[in-house]
Amino acid sequence: MPSMSRKLNYKLILRFLGNVVFIVGLFMLLPLLFSWYYGSGDLRGILLSAVVTIVSGGVIWLLGWSPRKRQAGKRDAYVIVTFTWVAIAFFGALPFVFTGAIPSYGDAFFEAMSGFTTTGASILDDIESLPQGVLFWRSLTHWLGGMGIIVLSLAILPLLGIGGMQLFTAEASASASDKLHPRVAVTAKRLYGVYLLLTLVLSLLLLLGGMTVFDALCHAFATVSTGGFSPNNDSIAGYSAYIQYVITVFMILGGINFALHYMTLTGKFQKALKNEELRYFLKLLIISATAISLLLIIRTGMNGEEAFRHALFQTVSIATTTGFVTTDYLAWPSYIWIILFFLMFTGGATGSTSGGLKAARQLMVFKISAAEFRKQLHPRAVVPVRLNGKGVPGDIVHNIMAFLLIYVLIFATGTLVMVLMGLDLETAMGSSIGTLGNIGPGIGAVGPVDNYALIPAPGKWFLSFLMLLGRLELFTVLILFSSRFWKE
Amino acid sequence: MPSMSRKLNYKLILRFLGNVVFIVGLFMLLPLLFSWYYGSGDLRGILLSAVVTIVSGGVIWLLGWSPRKRQAGKRDAYVIVTFTWVAIAFFGALPFVFTGAIPSYGDAFFEAMSGFTTTGASILDDIESLPQGVLFWRSLTHWLGGMGIIVLSLAILPLLGIGGMQLFTAEASASASDKLHPRVAVTAKRLYGVYLLLTLVLSLLLLLGGMTVFDALCHAFATVSTGGFSPNNDSIAGYSAYIQYVITVFMILGGINFALHYMTLTGKFQKALKNEELRYFLKLLIISATAISLLLIIRTGMNGEEAFRHALFQTVSIATTTGFVTTDYLAWPSYIWIILFFLMFTGGATGSTSGGLKAARQLMVFKISAAEFRKQLHPRAVVPVRLNGKGVPGDIVHNIMAFLLIYVLIFATGTLVMVLMGLDLETAMGSSIGTLGNIGPGIGAVGPVDNYALIPAPGKWFLSFLMLLGRLELFTVLILFSSRFWKE
Repeated sequence: MPSMSRKLNYKLILRFLGNVVFIVGLFMLLPLLFSWYYGSGDLRGILLSAVVTIVSGGVIWLLGWSPRKRQAGKRDAYVIVTFTWVAIAFFGALPFVFTGAIPSYGDAFFEAMSGFTTTGASILDDIESLPQGVLFWRSLTHWLGGMGIIVLSLAILPLLGIGGMQLFTAEASASASDKLHPRVAVTAKRLYGVYLLLTLVLSLLLLLGGMTVFDALCHAFATVSTGGFSPNNDSIAGYSAYIQYVITVFMILGGINFALHYMTLTGKFQKALKNEELRYFLKLLIISATAISLLLIIRTGMNGEEAFRHALFQTVSIATTTGFVTTDYLAWPSYIWIILFFLMFTGGATGSTSGGLKAARQLMVFKISAAEFRKQLHPRAVVPVRLNGKGVPGDIVHNIMAFLLIYVLIFATGTLVMVLMGLDLETAMGSSIGTLGNIGPGIGAVGPVDNYALIPAPGKWFLSFLMLLGRLELFTVLILFSSRFWKE
Repeated sequence: MPSMSRKLNYKLILRFLGNVVFIVGLFMLLPLLFSWYYGSGDLRGILLSAVVTIVSGGVIWLLGWSPRKRQAGKRDAYVIVTFTWVAIAFFGALPFVFTGAIPSYGDAFFEAMSGFTTTGASILDDIESLPQGVLFWRSLTHWLGGMGIIVLSLAILPLLGIGGMQLFTAEASASASDKLHPRVAVTAKRLYGVYLLLTLVLSLLLLLGGMTVFDALCHAFATVSTGGFSPNNDSIAGYSAYIQYVITVFMILGGINFALHYMTLTGKFQKALKNEELRYFLKLLIISATAISLLLIIRTGMNGEEAFRHALFQTVSIATTTGFVTTDYLAWPSYIWIILFFLMFTGGATGSTSGGLKAARQLMVFKISAAEFRKQLHPRAVVPVRLNGKGVPGDIVHNIMAFLLIYVLIFATGTLVMVLMGLDLETAMGSSIGTLGNIGPGIGAVGPVDNYALIPAPGKWFLSFLMLLGRLELFTVLILFSSRFWKE
């Protein structure tokens, strides 16, 4: 593990950030295809944004130029990770502003941060009024963000030892022989391969379902990244049952550890299926979807297939923190949408594109509680908490519990802050978990058919911060606020 | 520490329960004084209850008679503690039923459990319509419950090692020389002395404020036990500012560790004042009350003294889990009562009569989080969590974190259950924390001017269970649901 005690390598940090901003600038050229094809009038604004971003990336890179190259240390990694997301949201907001699609920079930053953190919370009232180029960029931010997250959570966070990530992600590739290639670059390439493949297959399936190329790509981006932006005002509600089922399947795939996908692709499906987090996550989905289906059928008299489809879609959409919508779940009886509200505290698997608390940590709550009861009965006994058949070291258990407590604390603080900004309790809770959990829609006035436009401007900045916190597993961001971090 | 592996000593358990029920039966004779004095017509019903309870106590005691006396083991203690509260609530409900004051046994059990757990949640719509004897009994259940709790939390739970109690309560009497006398009986006597003294002084102060003997005793019982039952429909709202301030002071005293009171009475005031939990708790009260006062003055234009008095009273009432009310806080702007809602997750000090999470555990959340950040920066460093100047052992930190997680989990489960019973989200959250935290009033439809009458019957049983769980620090009760507990 790299040392913490070295001085921060500012040159290296700048070079890295410059590089990322440069690449994001290049990706900004992609939407120009659709601007041109649809003649949507946003070509100049997007081109300008791309040029500004590419040039800025180059300048930042040059500022970090140094004849002597040093390896990144652990503290550099914290700064790099957090500032990468801040920087790409900063530049990613430009196409919204320069095309006039979102005139306020604060709103545009919220939308871009929501995109890159794969949250999917929007401040847009009328999404369809935006030009196609801008809409394509909006969906692309999800896809790029998801790409970053997979590498982050499988290659970088385990090294930093954050909230048990070292445990969950290492377990995904149990024995030494089938460990993901230790070097970050090779790991990244393999995972990108999986990510690209999923995107491609989903796009094709959506095209087969009658979507245009534009719609298929936008929805594929937002699905595999478990983001949730749709270019339609009514999200996925207007599409056929076939498309809704296809998207459901790919939201689940996006919510599964990508190391397991890689295992499956290399012929180790049986082994992947043994992963305890995966099994817990799938069980949770099945039980919740079944319960909601039955409640819908019995209590609202909804048609069986329809009830099952909506129940499954909403359960999966929220538990994987995607945030797509096929129907207004707040219009269902309250005990049903409150079950969905509780699912907002789940999140998909570690090592997936999905945000939230993560299924493994939720599973650990139950395991730790059970161990605690055994310990109460036999105070002198050693009661190990086990995951995937192996004992979890005490300091990692400690680490995970602290993560859970801080997560609850931040959710509560977020709720209180939004209340002090004038929101009612339900909306405050909904916006707090909707952004911290990287879900998008919440409950109250930020529900599935609403958006975040009503939030006062300082509230939008605060919620952007919550998205960043949730996406980067809390500690990565919070540690930068410790004076010790900068002093040593 | 007594062994866990022995067989349960059923005879001993029965003798103990019989004893407690017998004593509770004797205390039931006390309200007869007021029945007779006021001629309130409930004399026969209460007398019958007392006779049934005293005889039952005797019979249970006889069932447990055994020529060989064995010491109680740890497992016996769990059974004794939980079943003591169930048994006294079971018999304590009789006066409500036999006098016809509360015809439904389920409702009466809820009211008695609420009394003995010092919760103060009521199912009564019109309290003043009840005869004085029954009302006196209702207040007396608080006082008896509070008495039990002090001994439980300072003499029994530390032995069982529940949720850090061994740490907090031992710390209250730092060095070996001034440890509370280790033998439970002596400890109990000393604490009862303090408890009686507080009750007596408060009663006198209330009499001086113009209360009748009946009112003074009822309110003194409900204050020092941080219970919250009042014989008035409008709780404390109708009394003078003097009385409201006096009760505020004694709610705070009730919410402080009784070992510290004992220290103060034996001349070690300076030492008691150094207790970290006490300092945290007082700071929390001052900051919250000041913030709410200012918000009330600025935002509602309330008169300064009035704003301060209500803000202080409500803050103290909720943070100490008493639940008395001087005004309808839900009629205040929502951001104010939501601050109060957050205070419901505090609770007073360990070793006090107050319920809830406890100030020490809340303080530990911040200490543990801070330690976790330091650990993230220096993975190899040993970062101890300190309380009262001493390092806290790792397994106790672990224990406290598990307690906190399980507390949050039970609150969430309680909310979900109440939602499934048809309550709206706010009322469900309010009733869940109002009972689990032993506060009484919550938010939503179980707010300060409402009561629990609207809850469906199964919901009342469930909430009675939450009161028991919260009062007995979760583990004491939950451990009985483990099959291992009964097998070994």
